[in-house]
Amino acid sequence: MSPRLDVVLHHRFPRGVDQALREVDSVRVVEPSSDDEVVDALKRTGVLVTYQWDDRFLVPGLRWIQSISAGVDQFPVDRLAAADVVLTSARGVHAVPVAEHAFALLLALTRGVGFAMRNAGSRRWQPVTGRELSGATLGVLGLGVIGEEIARRGSVWGMRVIGTKANPIGYRGVASEVYGPDGTTAVFEGADAVVAALPDIPATRGLVDRGLLARLGGGWFVNVGRGSAVVEEDLIWALDEGGLLGAGLDVFAEEPLPPGSPLWDHSRVVLTPHVAGLSPAYGPRLAEIFGANVSALLGEAPWVNRMV
Amino acid sequence: MSPRLDVVLHHRFPRGVDQALREVDSVRVVEPSSDDEVVDALKRTGVLVTYQWDDRFLVPGLRWIQSISAGVDQFPVDRLAAADVVLTSARGVHAVPVAEHAFALLLALTRGVGFAMRNAGSRRWQPVTGRELSGATLGVLGLGVIGEEIARRGSVWGMRVIGTKANPIGYRGVASEVYGPDGTTAVFEGADAVVAALPDIPATRGLVDRGLLARLGGGWFVNVGRGSAVVEEDLIWALDEGGLLGAGLDVFAEEPLPPGSPLWDHSRVVLTPHVAGLSPAYGPRLAEIFGANVSALLGEAPWVNRMV
Repeated sequence: MSPRLDVVLHHRFPRGVDQALREVDSVRVVEPSSDDEVVDALKRTGVLVTYQWDDRFLVPGLRWIQSISAGVDQFPVDRLAAADVVLTSARGVHAVPVAEHAFALLLALTRGVGFAMRNAGSRRWQPVTGRELSGATLGVLGLGVIGEEIARRGSVWGMRVIGTKANPIGYRGVASEVYGPDGTTAVFEGADAVVAALPDIPATRGLVDRGLLARLGGGWFVNVGRGSAVVEEDLIWALDEGGLLGAGLDVFAEEPLPPGSPLWDHSRVVLTPHVAGLSPAYGPRLAEIFGANVSALLGEAPWVNRMV
Repeated sequence: MSPRLDVVLHHRFPRGVDQALREVDSVRVVEPSSDDEVVDALKRTGVLVTYQWDDRFLVPGLRWIQSISAGVDQFPVDRLAAADVVLTSARGVHAVPVAEHAFALLLALTRGVGFAMRNAGSRRWQPVTGRELSGATLGVLGLGVIGEEIARRGSVWGMRVIGTKANPIGYRGVASEVYGPDGTTAVFEGADAVVAALPDIPATRGLVDRGLLARLGGGWFVNVGRGSAVVEEDLIWALDEGGLLGAGLDVFAEEPLPPGSPLWDHSRVVLTPHVAGLSPAYGPRLAEIFGANVSALLGEAPWVNRMV
């Protein structure tokens, strides 16, 4: 099929996104190499695929922005709305890898893999008895697209799942108990393992503090959302004095994690460098949303993930 | 209920087994502290719960042995049969923790947790893109009680499952393709990740060699069965030259793993010190089998896991 639509791909994107977009029907991908060139190209095409925002991108004739990221906090949504520009997000592209990553961290704690890998450096053979997820209660903070994928994986492995959701009304997922944000304490009290999959918004900053971790007691805490949700000194307290069995962290208050952080060396901390969302399937999944929205722009289908 | 049966518990057992057995109805647990005392006690009771065997345990009047282990290779099954002694195994008690452990190792490879933990020692922040299990093919060597629990966990997480079984006739599990041992090559060819859950028998010793690992190519290999199944120098070859993406090992040819083994330091090896079967639920699960067999001995129910 000959291209019916020229789209501008911003020059900063995760590996594989360019290739995946080029394979979308009806589309020719224009690939400028600087923000100046992006502005010029946008004046001709009116369509932008991007992570980043620069106010100069709001050119006359701009019709649609497909965000490469799941969140769209970086975009001036009110001004886009006023200019009649459609904004669509990549919501959902991270769900599978993040959910699998959450269990990679949780199982590394419950089965002693993190502890054993710390021992490997000194060739120390030190068996410890692991615990079972089956029969335990999983608490998920943030039962959105990602949180629900986490919940589902726990449920089919024999876990009871409880959790929180910004708006729990009408929830139709696998969790047996769902609270609004004011039920966060109940989740820390009722769960053996709490997994946080929260966005970075004012209400979640510093949410996981000493008080909540004390309610969890002898359980596990995993964070695959944003580092801002956790008071890291309180997490250290929970590990050293509050009975917490372990913490699995992919995100941190400051990234890269500073060399001076005690989290690097703690025997009951498993950590990865903010990689939960990374996957070779990122490009193809984004292209699927993008392709559906190309059809929407051409008036042939409804929009997917339309935010403005 | 007052005890109707005295049973002798051998003095070597995993933590929690004594407590769990004491809670079984109708039973009084006799706990000698040496093999000599075991022999004396057995002459009175005729019932033994044990890991280990000593020929002196075959006293006149011995009626039933409940093995604490899943395998019963250590017992003289022919002589027990000739003496009309019932032997029951603990088959099944390990299935849940071993299955969860297999995924702990596999996910530590696919999500880069092992790599990140090796980096943590030097405080190095080095993001790498992980892979997804969802949509991949899982090969399970040994679709017995444990292998099937592994297969089931992969299946409900969106993996296609293939595997081998000593006797595949009449298989009714979740795997979509099941071969006899002669299909092992097909499993290495068709799978993205191969998990070995094989017993230590002549047919499995040295099974996983350079030829098989070459068929797996750019995949992952996990061993939660017995170390004897793998030719370790061939595994190192596969990692360094055969394209293998990673190996997750709980068992080794020699245990504890010798300090000189290159497996300790390999950046794409995740290892744990033979802990896959360890779980706080071990005692309660064994007690469940044992309790059912107490009823069997009293003529009130069928035997569970009867081997002789």
